[in-house]
Amino acid sequence: MADKAGRRMRFEQVYAKVAEDLVKEMRKEGIPEEVLAWYQQNLDYNVPGGKLNRGMSVVDTVEILKRRPLVEEEYVRAAVLGWCIELLQAYFLVSDDIMDTSITRRGHPCWYRKPEVGMIAINDSFMLSSAIYRLLKAYFKKETYYVDLLELFLETTWQTEIGQLIDLITAPEEVNLSKFSLERHSLIVIWKTAFYSFYLPVACAMHICGIPHTPIPLIDSTDPPKDPYDIAKSILLPLGEYFQVQDDYLDFSGTPEQIGKIGTDIIDNKCSWCINTALLHASPAQRHILDEHYGKKPSGGESELKIKAVFDEIGIREKYAAYEEDVVRLIRGRIAKVPEAEQENTLRGEVFESFLSKIYKRRK
Amino acid sequence: MADKAGRRMRFEQVYAKVAEDLVKEMRKEGIPEEVLAWYQQNLDYNVPGGKLNRGMSVVDTVEILKRRPLVEEEYVRAAVLGWCIELLQAYFLVSDDIMDTSITRRGHPCWYRKPEVGMIAINDSFMLSSAIYRLLKAYFKKETYYVDLLELFLETTWQTEIGQLIDLITAPEEVNLSKFSLERHSLIVIWKTAFYSFYLPVACAMHICGIPHTPIPLIDSTDPPKDPYDIAKSILLPLGEYFQVQDDYLDFSGTPEQIGKIGTDIIDNKCSWCINTALLHASPAQRHILDEHYGKKPSGGESELKIKAVFDEIGIREKYAAYEEDVVRLIRGRIAKVPEAEQENTLRGEVFESFLSKIYKRRK
Repeated sequence: MADKAGRRMRFEQVYAKVAEDLVKEMRKEGIPEEVLAWYQQNLDYNVPGGKLNRGMSVVDTVEILKRRPLVEEEYVRAAVLGWCIELLQAYFLVSDDIMDTSITRRGHPCWYRKPEVGMIAINDSFMLSSAIYRLLKAYFKKETYYVDLLELFLETTWQTEIGQLIDLITAPEEVNLSKFSLERHSLIVIWKTAFYSFYLPVACAMHICGIPHTPIPLIDSTDPPKDPYDIAKSILLPLGEYFQVQDDYLDFSGTPEQIGKIGTDIIDNKCSWCINTALLHASPAQRHILDEHYGKKPSGGESELKIKAVFDEIGIREKYAAYEEDVVRLIRGRIAKVPEAEQENTLRGEVFESFLSKIYKRRK
Repeated sequence: MADKAGRRMRFEQVYAKVAEDLVKEMRKEGIPEEVLAWYQQNLDYNVPGGKLNRGMSVVDTVEILKRRPLVEEEYVRAAVLGWCIELLQAYFLVSDDIMDTSITRRGHPCWYRKPEVGMIAINDSFMLSSAIYRLLKAYFKKETYYVDLLELFLETTWQTEIGQLIDLITAPEEVNLSKFSLERHSLIVIWKTAFYSFYLPVACAMHICGIPHTPIPLIDSTDPPKDPYDIAKSILLPLGEYFQVQDDYLDFSGTPEQIGKIGTDIIDNKCSWCINTALLHASPAQRHILDEHYGKKPSGGESELKIKAVFDEIGIREKYAAYEEDVVRLIRGRIAKVPEAEQENTLRGEVFESFLSKIYKRRK
């Protein structure tokens, strides 16, 4: 555990430097101090307080690809890219909270709920996104893969926005389960979460290790050689989907002691894996209950209990266990085909096993 | 006039193609039709309905730099960059309207005011910005200046967001004239408007004409040779500031018949050139009136009339005339130093004269 805390602390030290760089650069342009102070607050309030899994996984992946611990300069560069992912996440969270009229985030009031901020939070979220490109320019401008990093972050931003739009259109304020389906759920999850949370950190690590887009042959396969970035995507997108399905399932099945919060997907009309699985298997009578009671507050109220009873009748727990075995078998099968070269800075299956082992059968 | 309408129509035809490209590319990714329809609506409602001056000035500038009319392919590429600027503007306007709680834009309800849209407009504005980079990739990926275009749009976005933040902090909801000054006004105008409205179109045109960052000597100058992009900036930022000062002045002095709207800067507590000039010259008694009555509705009410009377006592009209002569002299002086080579695709003063002639002594 001391190790885990130390790992986080080292990563956080790079945040301090990154934030300082960003503010210093603005000061050079003659921006007034009160504006710099606002920007610093925007960064400090919204960027560093999360679990940091996405950001730190860039560092971990670089270490696996290099087959050795990183020297200080390598560490800093990997961590800067990690913080770029955390900035991207902050950009989405600040704006999602406005769109969802959320109240709190990470145990504090949402940024837009602070009286002096309000709708200025929209521009602040833009500035979090722009900070990514200031950092890429400051740290990676001279690298041959600089343009790849620019395109990677721009494309991932675009993908996540598409996912957000599909989600917003699918689950509007008034409840309408006829818009839901497992296919729609999969589409939302892949576009809104899997690209930026799973593919992006690994692709960042691959670029700074200099892995080219040159196709490589898969093990025991008659398929033509594949671009290593496409191989990574073919494993990490299903892995990201699995992670989100698990999250949805834990929101329903996990106890507050276990998951550290009270699940609200049912009362919040969320397009979750559980409701979509229930819709697929519901009898007409069960479907009637789902239509009548889904998305109805309060937490722990009669409607929520009725929904949970239908979920149990349908056997969501068993269906989740079966889903988990199936998807993990598929992912492991794909990982097994990733070739392992001896030299450092080439793709290897351990990158993906490391992600999978953090997720498989997690209970919180 | 037929010429002017024809010019606009040709530019608009490229919009139709650009929007089609964007939607087609999403369809290939398997995005559902209702999502594509939403995105198309977002584009059509927010991008093409403005004056299009910024976008069309890319085409005009390319023609001046090439010293000849463009062939179709050249025209389309210049116009695509023009539409990228219009997309950037749409991104800012959709979100600014939310931040300012505006009611109408270009004679229609603001996008976020449409009942089915609401706060989804925030994500929609992000998608307008992301569309820029889809287009740059589709049309310019193979060019040596591709990375310059990416950096140019990213940097201009950043600059405009800084300008917006300075403006939002300087003129918060409650009136406080002590935060205003001509220096602050200049800072807001340059960052929030001049970079994206004046420098960006010219820099785009210079890039597609292949003008490099190689320094060139100025006419009759002992200064060292300057990067042509820096030369452009040194003329276009003051020009952009002049344009906005003029806009502020017309908001006060123009009749509704002349400017096509009723000026609201005074009642809206805007950090305009007029109030800042008045603050600089006001006697204590005049300052008292400004403090008491600035930013007070209704339009045409007693407060607004008192402010206008102080503006007239201070002689805003004469001060504006003097400002205009000074700034135009400065700009003309800088234009005169731009060298004119004989070959096409090199910088020349006519680029800037063309902008200045559209602005100088304009009355609407």
